[in-house]
Amino acid sequence: MAKELTPRSKNYSQWYNELVVKADLAENSAVRGCMVIKPYGYAIWEKMQAELDRMFKETGHVNAYFPLFIPKSFFSKEASHVEGFAKECAVVTHYRLKNDPEGNGIIVDPDAKLEEELIVRPTSETIIWNTYKNWIQSYRDLPILCNQWANVVRWEMRTRLFLRTAEFLWQEGHTAHATEAEALEETEKMVNVYGDFAEQFMAMPVIKGAKSENERFAGALETYTIEALMQDGKALQSGTSHFLGQNFAKAFDVKFANRDGKDDYVWATSWGVSTRLMGALVMAHSDDNGLVLPPKLAPFQVVIVPIYRKDEQLAAINEKVDEIITKLKAKGITVKYDNADTKKPGWKFAEYELKGVPVRLGIGPRDIENGTVEVARRDTLEKNVVELDNIDQHVVDLLEEIQQNIYQKAVDYRTNHTTKVDTYEEFKEVLNGKGGFILAHWDGTPETEQKIKDETKATIRCIPFEGEKEEGKCIYTGNPSSQRVLFALAY
Amino acid sequence: MAKELTPRSKNYSQWYNELVVKADLAENSAVRGCMVIKPYGYAIWEKMQAELDRMFKETGHVNAYFPLFIPKSFFSKEASHVEGFAKECAVVTHYRLKNDPEGNGIIVDPDAKLEEELIVRPTSETIIWNTYKNWIQSYRDLPILCNQWANVVRWEMRTRLFLRTAEFLWQEGHTAHATEAEALEETEKMVNVYGDFAEQFMAMPVIKGAKSENERFAGALETYTIEALMQDGKALQSGTSHFLGQNFAKAFDVKFANRDGKDDYVWATSWGVSTRLMGALVMAHSDDNGLVLPPKLAPFQVVIVPIYRKDEQLAAINEKVDEIITKLKAKGITVKYDNADTKKPGWKFAEYELKGVPVRLGIGPRDIENGTVEVARRDTLEKNVVELDNIDQHVVDLLEEIQQNIYQKAVDYRTNHTTKVDTYEEFKEVLNGKGGFILAHWDGTPETEQKIKDETKATIRCIPFEGEKEEGKCIYTGNPSSQRVLFALAY
Repeated sequence: MAKELTPRSKNYSQWYNELVVKADLAENSAVRGCMVIKPYGYAIWEKMQAELDRMFKETGHVNAYFPLFIPKSFFSKEASHVEGFAKECAVVTHYRLKNDPEGNGIIVDPDAKLEEELIVRPTSETIIWNTYKNWIQSYRDLPILCNQWANVVRWEMRTRLFLRTAEFLWQEGHTAHATEAEALEETEKMVNVYGDFAEQFMAMPVIKGAKSENERFAGALETYTIEALMQDGKALQSGTSHFLGQNFAKAFDVKFANRDGKDDYVWATSWGVSTRLMGALVMAHSDDNGLVLPPKLAPFQVVIVPIYRKDEQLAAINEKVDEIITKLKAKGITVKYDNADTKKPGWKFAEYELKGVPVRLGIGPRDIENGTVEVARRDTLEKNVVELDNIDQHVVDLLEEIQQNIYQKAVDYRTNHTTKVDTYEEFKEVLNGKGGFILAHWDGTPETEQKIKDETKATIRCIPFEGEKEEGKCIYTGNPSSQRVLFALAY
Repeated sequence: MAKELTPRSKNYSQWYNELVVKADLAENSAVRGCMVIKPYGYAIWEKMQAELDRMFKETGHVNAYFPLFIPKSFFSKEASHVEGFAKECAVVTHYRLKNDPEGNGIIVDPDAKLEEELIVRPTSETIIWNTYKNWIQSYRDLPILCNQWANVVRWEMRTRLFLRTAEFLWQEGHTAHATEAEALEETEKMVNVYGDFAEQFMAMPVIKGAKSENERFAGALETYTIEALMQDGKALQSGTSHFLGQNFAKAFDVKFANRDGKDDYVWATSWGVSTRLMGALVMAHSDDNGLVLPPKLAPFQVVIVPIYRKDEQLAAINEKVDEIITKLKAKGITVKYDNADTKKPGWKFAEYELKGVPVRLGIGPRDIENGTVEVARRDTLEKNVVELDNIDQHVVDLLEEIQQNIYQKAVDYRTNHTTKVDTYEEFKEVLNGKGGFILAHWDGTPETEQKIKDETKATIRCIPFEGEKEEGKCIYTGNPSSQRVLFALAY
């Protein structure tokens, strides 16, 4: 088979890179660090978008759209933000090309230099808070609960499809509130929305918690995160929700008259997930045969492949398949029927396995005679011959079972790769051995975290919201600690 | 009323600018020529997107995503394309900012200059055909039917919200075909999709036809268009579909092995509509009181306003409104209930009139006693008292009637503002008088069209697909003509 993948055990990173390209999810473009998201990959992203968008709207948010470009000076207004974001970015300096007078094609017109350079947004807090200034006068104008679906650009030096690209697609929520408590509640609400989405739709268990100071978003007072564990034992930060305090309101002078008629600065949050989730989805479930997609996000949940030699056999199969498709669609199942005669069934089987289609139905002349169909599930690769009569309910149940099964498999993997350690020796041993999440005591200082990172590359993924509060001693300094935190190597 | 609009008769252009801002559709941003699309405006755009996306998928298209940036050299590859597009554009020349060593904030890092400048896409033919080169080897890989929802940037000097902005949102379809005939069929199919969308959802009648050579897309052999007439008698090009021949395939060397095993260049189309449709929607139907939205695209179709003095009256109204909302939702109607106590009913009536909500229900204590509700329709401003029992079906019928009525009104306006003329004198008289579409004979030469444009500013909007073929003489040169073409002043 031409599309064979490097096994995960041999080279996990290469397996991922090959899979993303061979399963037609994405590819590198002619522009360094920018990807092309291919139709099959984009169809998965659209499903993610649709569910997230519904969840955002159900929690009271509305969509809007803000400019792609941000004036350079805006980034200087929030001190920590500029350090975190404005450095590696795409800078627009000119607004016109012209024919080279010396005949060498087209060149940038030196007369068309912008007075102030524009930055292609790496994130939109600055331009949005500059806009909110005009929207907010009194507490009656609050809260503002806006989300934006957009592209952003961060000039990354080392890029990988979906996981780290110069341009990526995301959503960024930006909310404005009258009180600190309300903004904190929003920050927490949205990390919970992300957690629910990851677990219920991506079938990917996550640990929710707060970031340590070192790992916080540039400009945030708190960053909440969902952290997932990939099959190579590394963590992947999959979504973040930030409590921004009054930092951006102060930077852009956004005040409101509160209920007592007094002026106060507005409280802010921002939260986002990106096409990075596509990378997480691939790495969380897929195997050496290709993608394994959760039924709830698969572009099509069922593929039907006819198996025949003669044209009249195909005619009989086509007729039966029509009935099956009608029944499946009536249950809300998405189906593709691949009766193209340019490929053989074996090729198709491998192709749809590679693409992670949750359920495959194979149907041949003998099935027509017997009133049966062969049902193959992608997650376990099991095959069964099933009566056609009840095929629709069978598939409904099977899709639900697959969704549950791959979630449970990921939970089990995580359980087996989460280790409590009490000494720094043990910490390093686990990190360099089986990897995964490590629960350890930490003294709460940025300095200790930095030293551990410098020595081992591991970072604190989060201070988990859940889990027992337990007194202990920092594995590095021996200083007291009140809670274990989650360490891991991370993407 | 603070939000009073300049009447259309006084200053149509000012009426439009005020309406877009006051109805909360969009506003100018801190970045020259870039707009902020506000939540209410974005909700209408989302409805447009949802319908168009459905129509694209029903005609076999899939979505994908291509890079925001295009290497400068790509634009030189298709000769006429570079003339049309690459000149006024946003040019990225650097990829890093740094702290000014002299302490003046942040500056562009001169050491981070790109080897080749990147252009923020004004349209994506070049980057997409460079990608398709790798996707296409044989006729089996064709057709490719991709669409992209994206932002694009064209450095416009004079901008107007929605109608002409530096950054705008759009979709761009890019298809690849094995034969000329198939590509031409696709070009026509998509202009028909646009026409159906405009008429059925926007309630905006359009004339479909081919562009003259002068008005064609840069790089196209044929451009088909839908042209709508605004209330000031000017035309607005609302969507275009281009037959690109083999121009881009040749520019990017995209060949395929056809069924006979011979190499041939691939045939191409592209087609797009943008947030400009928002401007068309506003201008096609709205009046001096504000927006008039077609029910099929209104963010909410019905608003309910309680009218009361005492809190116990509100309690009774709330209870009744709950029932009404349940009934309306069951019929698929979107409803907003505005019982905020911070605004009076009169203020709310004006506000929802301004925002073009198709149907308003007013309900007070006497209505509760009588089992009635006051129903006001936005298009005619008529009010009626209606029995509550059958309110859901009444509203369903009314929404349908409003959709039809505003369409018919626009058709009637267009009929009254479409004039056949046979002399250049008459042509200028109509153009400077009542305006609108002018059907006149033209000799088919770019030179004549250019002269007419220079002298009158009118352009050929299209050579209509429908309408009698009629022999005649060019109004400008007297040379023979086989068909009247559609002239107008245009946005």
